[in-house]
Amino acid sequence: MKYVSILGSTGSIGTQTLQIVKDNPDKVKVVGLTTNENIDLLEQQILLFQPKVVAVMNVEKANALHKRLKGKIDVLSGLKGLCVVASLAEADITLTAVSGMIGLLPTLEAIDKGKDIALANKETLVSGGYIVMEKSKEKNVNIYPVDSEHSAIFQCLMGNSQQSINKIILTASGGPFRGYSLDDLKKVTVEKALKHPNWSMGRKISIDSATLMNKGLEVIEAKWLFDLDVDQIEVVVHPQSIVHSAVEFKDHGTLAQMGYPDMKVPIQLALFYPDRVSNDVKSLNLAQLGSLTFEKPSIEVFRCLGLAFESIKMGGSMPTVLNAANEIVVAAFLSKKIEFLQIPQIVEQVMEKHNVIYDLDLDKLLQIDEWARAVGAELVG
Amino acid sequence: MKYVSILGSTGSIGTQTLQIVKDNPDKVKVVGLTTNENIDLLEQQILLFQPKVVAVMNVEKANALHKRLKGKIDVLSGLKGLCVVASLAEADITLTAVSGMIGLLPTLEAIDKGKDIALANKETLVSGGYIVMEKSKEKNVNIYPVDSEHSAIFQCLMGNSQQSINKIILTASGGPFRGYSLDDLKKVTVEKALKHPNWSMGRKISIDSATLMNKGLEVIEAKWLFDLDVDQIEVVVHPQSIVHSAVEFKDHGTLAQMGYPDMKVPIQLALFYPDRVSNDVKSLNLAQLGSLTFEKPSIEVFRCLGLAFESIKMGGSMPTVLNAANEIVVAAFLSKKIEFLQIPQIVEQVMEKHNVIYDLDLDKLLQIDEWARAVGAELVG
Repeated sequence: MKYVSILGSTGSIGTQTLQIVKDNPDKVKVVGLTTNENIDLLEQQILLFQPKVVAVMNVEKANALHKRLKGKIDVLSGLKGLCVVASLAEADITLTAVSGMIGLLPTLEAIDKGKDIALANKETLVSGGYIVMEKSKEKNVNIYPVDSEHSAIFQCLMGNSQQSINKIILTASGGPFRGYSLDDLKKVTVEKALKHPNWSMGRKISIDSATLMNKGLEVIEAKWLFDLDVDQIEVVVHPQSIVHSAVEFKDHGTLAQMGYPDMKVPIQLALFYPDRVSNDVKSLNLAQLGSLTFEKPSIEVFRCLGLAFESIKMGGSMPTVLNAANEIVVAAFLSKKIEFLQIPQIVEQVMEKHNVIYDLDLDKLLQIDEWARAVGAELVG
Repeated sequence: MKYVSILGSTGSIGTQTLQIVKDNPDKVKVVGLTTNENIDLLEQQILLFQPKVVAVMNVEKANALHKRLKGKIDVLSGLKGLCVVASLAEADITLTAVSGMIGLLPTLEAIDKGKDIALANKETLVSGGYIVMEKSKEKNVNIYPVDSEHSAIFQCLMGNSQQSINKIILTASGGPFRGYSLDDLKKVTVEKALKHPNWSMGRKISIDSATLMNKGLEVIEAKWLFDLDVDQIEVVVHPQSIVHSAVEFKDHGTLAQMGYPDMKVPIQLALFYPDRVSNDVKSLNLAQLGSLTFEKPSIEVFRCLGLAFESIKMGGSMPTVLNAANEIVVAAFLSKKIEFLQIPQIVEQVMEKHNVIYDLDLDKLLQIDEWARAVGAELVG
């Protein structure tokens, strides 16, 4: 039996994880849950999964839930509450599926207490990669990626050593503007950018998919998760999204992880590794698919992807700056303050203003993150 | 340092293996070599690789080589000689790359003496699968497949348990007659059948590729190597021959092994498992490939593939009969005694005449093999 704490249990990954828990009562049990502010859903989850402790980020909502539950269960609040749930003594593994920088501190707290991590929070590694990986080595903690690309690479590496990697091939759907020229991108509207060809997602990640910044952030995550040099990471556009990513080994044998897109596969593997547990995901029919296509992304047209690679080359605090600036700039695009092509331009300007710091700790990181957001906001106007 | 005996060192797999030995003098050393009758090449190999013992299948050629070498090295002969080289005390692993049924006995001898097996001889498993796998379990011996499809599956399974397999997907190039109807196949000549679109091979295996019997034999091998039920094996036609095969696990995650076709990858992995050793094989460029296509094979048109599946369903001695009959019938086609479409017809007739035996041992197996060849020869006329 595995005991799991879920940070962000009311979001997409959180609810899918709870479905897996429900389907596998003999394998996994919930000990902690958190939400940002969706206390209605959290209340239902509490009744169904009977966790030991829960936390609500929003303090008022936390108080409201506490009243509703009449003290039947501890309802903690704020970032402190999240950190407590992340590091519960009863938990074997902590799934961090909150979005944004607030995921970083609870993840570090969980690692510090020796919990394995099922990682579905991008910022944890994009921004805090160095600190998180150092701590996880020190504490001998496993980090299981919960997103299709990094789980794909993780699966390809099962039974193979990190030293045997020649390169990894991160696949990208190419987003709604695949094949566009820079000129085409000038005319892009918010409405068009939000329409992803393969799936519907939140607004911020939809724009990141349209700019390929999303893939750039995944490149940074992969660098940290698999301890790679920047020239060991290749991005290939694969519009069908069937090959989730691949690893080429030193002997030039390549393993690719494939399947119809379904987050159940990476979530389950993170919870049950190394076991592969049955589920209702559709079985792969290659003949029916007919054809899988691949093409090189243009980092001239999709400049955000190039900037992400450059941020790793510069190293230190630069990926933190890229990520923070991007968040501000994407929000500005979504509220129609700037044009689509200004997204990479302004991110680059913020990066140019930053003097890289290599000797990082959590406080410095959070300061730099704040600084980059402020500079980004100023440039957005 | 690993010590290897190579049965069939003058053939295609044998010479490629010796190139790998040459490239990795710090990792592997040759202790035994054998040839069918190519003593000129064997003599060169002896001078270069300094094995302890060699064997030549053809007795006269063995004597000739013995004279040439003036007793500097033991030159054994015949099947007995092969068995000695297969099971040398100095060997850690025996690579069996001879072709035909003569590979079976030396392989069993090697397993009996506890040698790991690098298996490049089809008949060993197609014909003797049950006996070979039982003995390898009893002796706790590893069998490393040395052909692209089974090595692909083996690679996908590294780090995953046999119990986690949902199905395997064996890829097939489709051969020179991909997309043909039964009517089209009526007009097929020996010359056309020998022209494989992707690579040049021996005459027998070229015809097996054209009928898809080659894939059928691989289905039988896979059944034994990976302990699968027949309905866990799927064949998919993939003309580009980049995806060498795949495994879908119980969680419906699939791993596929890919790369430009090069036998160095499976040979190296068999010798150096679990290490992935650098080589000069070309690095995979998916974007340059552009597109990978997949289609269902027609077992109505390519009846040999269907017969192979049926032979496993019937089990026991039936795959032995299928394989033996096919050898005779293909030889008859090659010498223009029969038409292309008669190949499956006559194989099926031999199968129909056979009463399956389940309680198999090596003697019975060799008898049944002989019987099927005789019946096949009679039907060929």
